[in-house]
Amino acid sequence: MTSAQIAYLGPAGTFTEQAARQWAPDDAADAWPAPSVPAAVEALREGRVREAVVPFENSVEGSVPATLQALLDGSTDDGVRIIGELHVEVQFSLLVRPGTTLGQVRTVASHPHAFAQTRDWLSARLPQAQQVPESSTARAAQAVAEGGYDAAVAAPGAATAYRLVPAAEHIADREGAVTRFVVLRRGAALPAPTGGDRTTLVVLIWQNRPGALLELLEQFATRGIDLSRLESRPTGEGLGEYCFWIDADAHLSEQRMREALTGLRRTCRDVRFLGSYPRADGRAAAVPPHADDDAYAEAQGWVDRLTRG
Amino acid sequence: MTSAQIAYLGPAGTFTEQAARQWAPDDAADAWPAPSVPAAVEALREGRVREAVVPFENSVEGSVPATLQALLDGSTDDGVRIIGELHVEVQFSLLVRPGTTLGQVRTVASHPHAFAQTRDWLSARLPQAQQVPESSTARAAQAVAEGGYDAAVAAPGAATAYRLVPAAEHIADREGAVTRFVVLRRGAALPAPTGGDRTTLVVLIWQNRPGALLELLEQFATRGIDLSRLESRPTGEGLGEYCFWIDADAHLSEQRMREALTGLRRTCRDVRFLGSYPRADGRAAAVPPHADDDAYAEAQGWVDRLTRG
Repeated sequence: MTSAQIAYLGPAGTFTEQAARQWAPDDAADAWPAPSVPAAVEALREGRVREAVVPFENSVEGSVPATLQALLDGSTDDGVRIIGELHVEVQFSLLVRPGTTLGQVRTVASHPHAFAQTRDWLSARLPQAQQVPESSTARAAQAVAEGGYDAAVAAPGAATAYRLVPAAEHIADREGAVTRFVVLRRGAALPAPTGGDRTTLVVLIWQNRPGALLELLEQFATRGIDLSRLESRPTGEGLGEYCFWIDADAHLSEQRMREALTGLRRTCRDVRFLGSYPRADGRAAAVPPHADDDAYAEAQGWVDRLTRG
Repeated sequence: MTSAQIAYLGPAGTFTEQAARQWAPDDAADAWPAPSVPAAVEALREGRVREAVVPFENSVEGSVPATLQALLDGSTDDGVRIIGELHVEVQFSLLVRPGTTLGQVRTVASHPHAFAQTRDWLSARLPQAQQVPESSTARAAQAVAEGGYDAAVAAPGAATAYRLVPAAEHIADREGAVTRFVVLRRGAALPAPTGGDRTTLVVLIWQNRPGALLELLEQFATRGIDLSRLESRPTGEGLGEYCFWIDADAHLSEQRMREALTGLRRTCRDVRFLGSYPRADGRAAAVPPHADDDAYAEAQGWVDRLTRG
């Protein structure tokens, strides 16, 4: 089906392709545009690709539910892990066929998230145009190329892929929106710690215990670990049933992180480890002196001596 | 534009219409199907309707971003408050024009969330059918009625509204999915406390202060208040910038809730109060003896006596 080294959430011409090129420039030529995130994970499982690049969260729209679900499924069955992340700035253009002017646009296609991020521009400049939802911004661009609609709100890169031209550029309502992508491998060794790492976890707490979330957060705080992300997601089991997606600013190779994980394992209903990997922004973790590996080793030595008597 | 008493997120034939009928059976006949959540809030602001019913969260798909945003916007400008909530069980049918059989279905239209909730059924029973995203399940049903597609995944009620028939019923992958709706009013008095109430808040913490979320949760725990919901949402200001949507199991008329609010106000970047209202499930709040109004009054009396000397 594919002899590619790397899969990404397709089609071509999306921000995910841009992220895949950025991650692995040498493999970009034959990268495989997977039709869905589960399909990309499936290709990893079957060994058809080495890595997969998928969108994880956006600074405006929040997380990407299909990715979170595929990651949860993949981590159970197949040891799929996050081994890296990338940030890509999101820019939107209004793409049309050559010769079409803004005044001629009656129908605009795009992904609903892209409509949401260009709402103000569209209502100011194309108040009368009909908005048609498509399953991706690239598919919208393709539909424009085929004559189905007059214009598409899409990534600038989609212009090249589908021989369209921008009727307007930088049309996002907020400048500086960023999408975070993660890179997945199956059965890979953990990336080495860099001093600026993240560990991604999914934790299910005991719902009927008041204060359970507080206790969960204390497992990190008491070991000097900052959290850079905490997101609640429904488990699907009923209203009020959540699991928590957590990015902790530490690497599994650090003693503070290993001890926090044992604490979660003892006190929570379920804990899933999705990987330790370098942060895209390269920011170093702030490790309080009482929580670094030396402090842990010194303290452990003391308790060992007490135990020996 | 409308002389209705009540607005709901339209079009007709959706679960939201069902919720509106359940909330106000007497006003259902002339309820106004608003084209969007912001339009429903706008109708409240302009006094064109008394109440608005909008979807808030679903037990499978999570919260409804458009509603959260409209509530945030409305609470600043206009004193729009949640005065009640309802739970509606979500069921999906595959609706077709009379005479169409399952074997004849080549194209299926629906809202992407409904596709997500019927994924297994669709891939087992209609693996070859093309899935076409529409902006609502009702609009998908309407498009089927007009001959645009062969079938729609929609609420059972849409069959009546668009003269379709079910080719299959109860096709959701998970039984028992529930959607929670909220009822909004502008400038209304708080509903009286019932002993089983919720207070909905949005809290923005100081992001650069490690442990800020822990402190936020402690404001509730230390006053004996359970949280039935906590959801992080991006603020749109950048990756890692979140606000927290909180449902606390207490009413603003209770001293423990008022003190918790002052604690949040002192320590957080911003706190928005969206309403105190009875829970749909009627469950009574568990108030520990040390946190009820009598305990607060007794303790306040003691401190007053100390102060007087």
